[in-house]
Amino acid sequence: MKDIYIAELAAFEEGKLFDGFFLVLARQQRTTSTNKPYLSLTLGDKTGTMEARVWEPNDPRIARDFDRGDIVKVRGSASRFKDTTQLKVDQLRKATDGEVDKADLMPSTTYDVAALWAQLLSFVDSFTEPDLKRLLTTILSDPTLAAAYREAPAAKQLHHAWLGGLLEHVVSLLTLADRVVPHYPILHRDLVLTGVILHDIGKIRELSWEIGFEYTVEGQLLGHIQIGSALAERTMDSLPDFPPRLKTLVLHIILSHHGKLEFGSPKLPMIPEALVLNFLDDLDAKMQAVANEFEKCAREGKAPDELTGKVWALDQRQMLNTRGWLGESKK
Amino acid sequence: MKDIYIAELAAFEEGKLFDGFFLVLARQQRTTSTNKPYLSLTLGDKTGTMEARVWEPNDPRIARDFDRGDIVKVRGSASRFKDTTQLKVDQLRKATDGEVDKADLMPSTTYDVAALWAQLLSFVDSFTEPDLKRLLTTILSDPTLAAAYREAPAAKQLHHAWLGGLLEHVVSLLTLADRVVPHYPILHRDLVLTGVILHDIGKIRELSWEIGFEYTVEGQLLGHIQIGSALAERTMDSLPDFPPRLKTLVLHIILSHHGKLEFGSPKLPMIPEALVLNFLDDLDAKMQAVANEFEKCAREGKAPDELTGKVWALDQRQMLNTRGWLGESKK
Amino acid sequence: MKDIYIAELAAFEEGKLFDGFFLVLARQQRTTSTNKPYLSLTLGDKTGTMEARVWEPNDPRIARDFDRGDIVKVRGSASRFKDTTQLKVDQLRKATDGEVDKADLMPSTTYDVAALWAQLLSFVDSFTEPDLKRLLTTILSDPTLAAAYREAPAAKQLHHAWLGGLLEHVVSLLTLADRVVPHYPILHRDLVLTGVILHDIGKIRELSWEIGFEYTVEGQLLGHIQIGSALAERTMDSLPDFPPRLKTLVLHIILSHHGKLEFGSPKLPMIPEALVLNFLDDLDAKMQAVANEFEKCAREGKAPDELTGKVWALDQRQMLNTRGWLGESKK
Amino acid sequence: MKDIYIAELAAFEEGKLFDGFFLVLARQQRTTSTNKPYLSLTLGDKTGTMEARVWEPNDPRIARDFDRGDIVKVRGSASRFKDTTQLKVDQLRKATDGEVDKADLMPSTTYDVAALWAQLLSFVDSFTEPDLKRLLTTILSDPTLAAAYREAPAAKQLHHAWLGGLLEHVVSLLTLADRVVPHYPILHRDLVLTGVILHDIGKIRELSWEIGFEYTVEGQLLGHIQIGSALAERTMDSLPDFPPRLKTLVLHIILSHHGKLEFGSPKLPMIPEALVLNFLDDLDAKMQAVANEFEKCAREGKAPDELTGKVWALDQRQMLNTRGWLGESKK
Amino acid sequence: MKDIYIAELAAFEEGKLFDGFFLVLARQQRTTSTNKPYLSLTLGDKTGTMEARVWEPNDPRIARDFDRGDIVKVRGSASRFKDTTQLKVDQLRKATDGEVDKADLMPSTTYDVAALWAQLLSFVDSFTEPDLKRLLTTILSDPTLAAAYREAPAAKQLHHAWLGGLLEHVVSLLTLADRVVPHYPILHRDLVLTGVILHDIGKIRELSWEIGFEYTVEGQLLGHIQIGSALAERTMDSLPDFPPRLKTLVLHIILSHHGKLEFGSPKLPMIPEALVLNFLDDLDAKMQAVANEFEKCAREGKAPDELTGKVWALDQRQMLNTRGWLGESKK
Amino acid sequence: MKDIYIAELAAFEEGKLFDGFFLVLARQQRTTSTNKPYLSLTLGDKTGTMEARVWEPNDPRIARDFDRGDIVKVRGSASRFKDTTQLKVDQLRKATDGEVDKADLMPSTTYDVAALWAQLLSFVDSFTEPDLKRLLTTILSDPTLAAAYREAPAAKQLHHAWLGGLLEHVVSLLTLADRVVPHYPILHRDLVLTGVILHDIGKIRELSWEIGFEYTVEGQLLGHIQIGSALAERTMDSLPDFPPRLKTLVLHIILSHHGKLEFGSPKLPMIPEALVLNFLDDLDAKMQAVANEFEKCAREGKAPDELTGKVWALDQRQMLNTRGWLGESKK
Repeated sequence: MKDIYIAELAAFEEGKLFDGFFLVLARQQRTTSTNKPYLSLTLGDKTGTMEARVWEPNDPRIARDFDRGDIVKVRGSASRFKDTTQLKVDQLRKATDGEVDKADLMPSTTYDVAALWAQLLSFVDSFTEPDLKRLLTTILSDPTLAAAYREAPAAKQLHHAWLGGLLEHVVSLLTLADRVVPHYPILHRDLVLTGVILHDIGKIRELSWEIGFEYTVEGQLLGHIQIGSALAERTMDSLPDFPPRLKTLVLHIILSHHGKLEFGSPKLPMIPEALVLNFLDDLDAKMQAVANEFEKCAREGKAPDELTGKVWALDQRQMLNTRGWLGESKK
Repeated sequence: MKDIYIAELAAFEEGKLFDGFFLVLARQQRTTSTNKPYLSLTLGDKTGTMEARVWEPNDPRIARDFDRGDIVKVRGSASRFKDTTQLKVDQLRKATDGEVDKADLMPSTTYDVAALWAQLLSFVDSFTEPDLKRLLTTILSDPTLAAAYREAPAAKQLHHAWLGGLLEHVVSLLTLADRVVPHYPILHRDLVLTGVILHDIGKIRELSWEIGFEYTVEGQLLGHIQIGSALAERTMDSLPDFPPRLKTLVLHIILSHHGKLEFGSPKLPMIPEALVLNFLDDLDAKMQAVANEFEKCAREGKAPDELTGKVWALDQRQMLNTRGWLGESKK
Repeated sequence: MKDIYIAELAAFEEGKLFDGFFLVLARQQRTTSTNKPYLSLTLGDKTGTMEARVWEPNDPRIARDFDRGDIVKVRGSASRFKDTTQLKVDQLRKATDGEVDKADLMPSTTYDVAALWAQLLSFVDSFTEPDLKRLLTTILSDPTLAAAYREAPAAKQLHHAWLGGLLEHVVSLLTLADRVVPHYPILHRDLVLTGVILHDIGKIRELSWEIGFEYTVEGQLLGHIQIGSALAERTMDSLPDFPPRLKTLVLHIILSHHGKLEFGSPKLPMIPEALVLNFLDDLDAKMQAVANEFEKCAREGKAPDELTGKVWALDQRQMLNTRGWLGESKK
Repeated sequence: MKDIYIAELAAFEEGKLFDGFFLVLARQQRTTSTNKPYLSLTLGDKTGTMEARVWEPNDPRIARDFDRGDIVKVRGSASRFKDTTQLKVDQLRKATDGEVDKADLMPSTTYDVAALWAQLLSFVDSFTEPDLKRLLTTILSDPTLAAAYREAPAAKQLHHAWLGGLLEHVVSLLTLADRVVPHYPILHRDLVLTGVILHDIGKIRELSWEIGFEYTVEGQLLGHIQIGSALAERTMDSLPDFPPRLKTLVLHIILSHHGKLEFGSPKLPMIPEALVLNFLDDLDAKMQAVANEFEKCAREGKAPDELTGKVWALDQRQMLNTRGWLGESKK
Repeated sequence: MKDIYIAELAAFEEGKLFDGFFLVLARQQRTTSTNKPYLSLTLGDKTGTMEARVWEPNDPRIARDFDRGDIVKVRGSASRFKDTTQLKVDQLRKATDGEVDKADLMPSTTYDVAALWAQLLSFVDSFTEPDLKRLLTTILSDPTLAAAYREAPAAKQLHHAWLGGLLEHVVSLLTLADRVVPHYPILHRDLVLTGVILHDIGKIRELSWEIGFEYTVEGQLLGHIQIGSALAERTMDSLPDFPPRLKTLVLHIILSHHGKLEFGSPKLPMIPEALVLNFLDDLDAKMQAVANEFEKCAREGKAPDELTGKVWALDQRQMLNTRGWLGESKK
Repeated sequence: MKDIYIAELAAFEEGKLFDGFFLVLARQQRTTSTNKPYLSLTLGDKTGTMEARVWEPNDPRIARDFDRGDIVKVRGSASRFKDTTQLKVDQLRKATDGEVDKADLMPSTTYDVAALWAQLLSFVDSFTEPDLKRLLTTILSDPTLAAAYREAPAAKQLHHAWLGGLLEHVVSLLTLADRVVPHYPILHRDLVLTGVILHDIGKIRELSWEIGFEYTVEGQLLGHIQIGSALAERTMDSLPDFPPRLKTLVLHIILSHHGKLEFGSPKLPMIPEALVLNFLDDLDAKMQAVANEFEKCAREGKAPDELTGKVWALDQRQMLNTRGWLGESKK
């Protein structure tokens, strides 16, 4: 448990000393307009990021061997400049292993990851199609991959941009898909659910989340669609007698899940399962964005009958909170 | 029960006499290239349409007082010209009231209309929001309107283009929406369902289905969105103390249900209920189009592992029948 | 008559005291970077808006009971910070009714509203089609509606964004349409002029202009096209024996006046009168925007042979003042 | 005066002999499916075109020395094949000069060309700007150019696709512009009218109308905008002391008159005169297309309250004839 | 060597007997309008396709055991119906292996395949980057794959739609790229050439060319970009110590070679080598299409100074043959 | 040779005096927030621009007779404000003719202009088509035009935005085109090269580069395509017996070189030479932009395996430096 969070420092009494653990997101040598050199750090934790300045880098109480990506313990004080708070660092040392929970240093899902993972596995357990069950069991039992799947964010920003976000998004979609599939008898349930579990799996290499959320260069050049379909193909090739036509369908559902060429899918959905996955994925992302925006407005004290700010995921449209506008507290 | 259907005549023995009731969809005076005059009719029933020629319009066995829209009893024979079958009419008279079931003369839903209607009403019955319940009860208890709602097709062509198609589409959407709504706590269930029931109600005046399915001129100039929202507004204005904000939401959900300005919605969805309605309406129409196409391919004897023809509702994309391609008979 | 206008304060001697009436457009509690609390106000009148700060909100000479939307009398002084002028408020009280002319507090048309209104009515008086004359007379003789019609701006910003702007725009269009209509014998003059008078009437509820120009939430959710067509429909429904086909045409001309689906018209113009209205409305808005831009350049002392700034209404295109470039003072 | 017109032959008694003058639009050697050779001609006059066959090309009564573009006198008879009429040619000789009025052989304006030309010149005469008057007088007094201007169609097909169509379109636009210009004080009247007269002048070389209406290869490669602006530039360069800035404006108004880059204008309108010309040119072309379509429907006996066919110039939209639908005979 | 080609039959004397080998592209049972059954075949060879009818399918001289895809020897005669030639089949038997050269039955490159292949290998031989050389050598030395690479068409229709077309297109692009690469020092030559050789390699499974050129279902669902990148990835994974970053670049260049998302590339070119490949591939395809069209016009006897027909690969634009228009025979 | 450059002043010791020659790009009277008046200048040279302030404009050591566009000698000192450096001017006088090389005051090509010009002329010298040779020789031997051609930038900003940039771009394209032309036998070499030399020649009047790079008003209203084609047409008209068809082709290649209507070309390329010019011009501009961006990243010390910043000419795409990422120093 950390002593203090970034979010708390924004309102911290000026000049008063604090102690805290933070992740170093950037470290740069700078000079003021009056030519005074200083070390500029970007420090972060799960509640946000803030600039900190080291004015005396040669002070023996300031470690020299730390870099971007390190966890550090800092003693310092806060000061306010215009509308922003800035930290002044008096002492700084690298944290020792285990001294702080990494989960405190990055935004994370509010759900229990172990429970989400169990839900995911129980969906796979419910499959009646043996080859798809074999495929997913093989992938999800790879310990490195499973660890990454549990940890990855679903995006750099926007919807589910937090540790565990990928898993949270997939479990939500599995639940939704399982509600919708029985409505359409032409749908192959296990193929839809396979698509849900694998469609974004390439994000575990498209993104890095060690020190903030970033695209990897590999991710930029290939994209999670290509990375994910290659991973699925490699696994299917390794399974004895995996049916070739089923393999083609699994790859197709991954390739086409963005639903439009201009969204980066090289193929449009051509089987009903791919069509449904594209719709539900899109709906779920947009509904999550709307719910996030409503929470943000509530947090910021906006009147419940006002329009929200512009929602990026909805092409900058403003939304209205139905219940707020109708004056209902809760339905 | 009709004696014979258009679909049967395509394969009828040449020259052999048939008797049958048909709807006159068009009647025009024509002349052959050798200057021989004849009466050209387009006859139709629920299985299709066919051209018929009257070579002796002055024969006393040919009625003179019939016109487009009449039901007629015809005696004649079939002949084939290139790939098409043509009818030669020997006798023709107007049908008397009740002599033939109108349902035999136009394509109709394969569902039981009374059962669909009961399902619709039971959804309304489940509402907990009294004003929306009052609104829908008022609209659906208008006998003229209710009769039209039960009879209207959902489109001139494409998805649900048959008598009862509107009701069939709405009940399918109600069932689907009722599955999806609980997944999103921010949704106002009764408002979503109200949107489902009212979104296409303007089609009962946008389309005419007396003699084939056509757009009315009023439908062309105003569209079902405007006609439907005006109908809803008029009804809400007539209800004492209908909450003005709720009225605005109901109108908004109708106006925005096409989801894009370029699809004829003057406003984009700005409440979560409108967003969900737009997604589910679109998904349901596309899935219905895919299912129709699969049935058509099966009917036409296409191999189960071939792609379908181009599907209009999916921008002319071809689709693949997953089960057919995998060689499953039934999951 | 006000003592001083916002526009004058921009050049007011620093430190010198002024007295003036202003509209409070915003009121917010703020803190400086040095933690000093103050009250930030946005004050406006017909010449513009400016920030004002109350450093001593507990001073008995500062009223406590005022809010956004109130008219206040202020005594204070101006100071300059970078390129902006800021007001320091020493005394503040709510104005009493009638103490200041509201027309001084918001931008207004430079035309005589009564004269414009008379012109509008005389156009209606010239109608030869009795039903359309009856429709417009009914609408324009509703005192609440007529008052709003005379007062409403034509837009939140851009063309005619001032009190009386709607009326000014409509009268200009009536005059233009009356010049163009005789050139095309297929046009129904009174229907074109009806379209001109009613096309933007929904703006009286789409916009609010009590405290600055804002969209209402109802306006955002429904739009002036829907609000206006509903108003027209309600009125026509209330007139005995109003011809149904004429009603459809009036509604169509309102619905289609934006000319493109992507501009929010749910239907494209399908009668010549709607086509002409869309062209002239668009032309008039663009020509007004160009004339405004030329005036702005002249006011700002730009050389007469330079291009203007980017004109929003013309997709950010720059325009050239023909006469200025040719060196003509006046043709 | 011709003996008989193409339009009359469509209903001519089969087998009966006719004599007539026609323009040869195409001449090709062909063979029937039974290997019988014949000469296929396309003959035309101002009322339309028709195929004619010469079965005995070696008959001494059939001239040999004629080709595409010649006027011929034909004796023959009509026969009907399916829905089309075909001519059988028994005798054919080239017409002698003056034997037939060329105006009978191509579709032409229904207006008096001399009167239109006088109107055009009187507009120029009304100019107060001496340089523009000098420019237009110079261009229009070039006898070759003036002859072409009076003769040219305004388009290959669509609006004003007939001899004299360019002049008819320009005079209509001059009249319309002269009504609109006084409404906008910022407009330079003579510059607008100069733009009207010159905007399409390049069509006299973009199109050829000797034998049907065709694009020239030069017209395809350069377009009438480039051809017209080059012609105007050459003339202005030849006039002593023509003001360079005025020259730039005249060229700009020609270049920009299509109003959009994607319509082939290399520059968007950047002066008010160019903006107005683009609007009025577009409006006039569309209104003419609508009026043509209404006439066509009336000619073809369509019910006055039906929608028209799809109008090419309005993106295949169908239009409704207001008066027809309202049941008015004439306003 | 075949006895006779389809192209020759179009002008063959009616009724005269011919003997020839053809590929059966389609076989369908049909009935005439007079109910006479017949067998309709589509026969093809490298010069084209033609319909043939078997009127006496039970004649012992007509084989029964042949199907779509078989090579048959046919004796029959030609007849002309309207503008098309039709074959009447008197005798038909399946060809025996080796009786006819398959190259005579499908359109093929006019180049020597062995020479093209040698050119391709010599380009690989010139590589200085050992890993890329190793990659290509491995791929091209797989006998099955190499055989398919030499045989595959480059497209179903349009540019290079003939056997050997893929190889011909690649060798042309290699030569062009080798001319352009030295102009830009930032380019990695071997990486550009690797991209050229691999960019379309997926077409060997996207297309089938056994019986006419068709897309495979796998090709429709995955596309040649995905198939090709998977093939390259699998090979690179099999090479010891293949540099991972180089692997990413090779995959990127394949993925991005269509240059736009809407053309099916899931990623845009982000390295200079990918940018250049996209430009040259596009240029070469368009120039080949233009050259084909000029040849077609010459073959069809079009005047050399006329525009061509509409060129599909250039968005239906017509082109002009510069030399033909200038009247040069040869530069 | 200048004493000091703008780029050096950014790091100049605060307060220390410097002397230097600069171009005055802007001169404006301003007042500080504390009402202190000063003269604000924008000074530039070939390395950049910087703001300078004259606090004592009445000091006799400050000249009064200088204006925008003048070259001045300045004595002053530098000070830093936030991240920007500002100059304080103590003395200022206009430079005398010849005191400073104008090439030092504007960004210029790094190539030898005389050598580039010689290359250009030797390309013309290699022409075998006499009329095109005559045309280019005539244009390039006009001393005023040739001087402008050697001096003009190729753009206001983006690629080749420096003095001599037009010539540098053209010579690069000539070299590239000369490599590509032999690959396509259908190309008319001299016509392609003529297109390269003339395609952007209108930029010598579209842009002004006396005082910074600006569009002229004439350039804005007409564009370099129109200006250039008019110049070419005028010259061809002046040459006795210039072949009219060749003239049309030269004009077409200039008009169409942007390749798309929406990029300002009024005609699409319709001859192979125009198609190739459009491709190579586009490729060369993009490759130059990528090379510039790589140099900029190297200059700014970006890691060689990072993506670049967003490249404007590639729709804000980021690029990767292949060699940098692979860790090669030099191939």
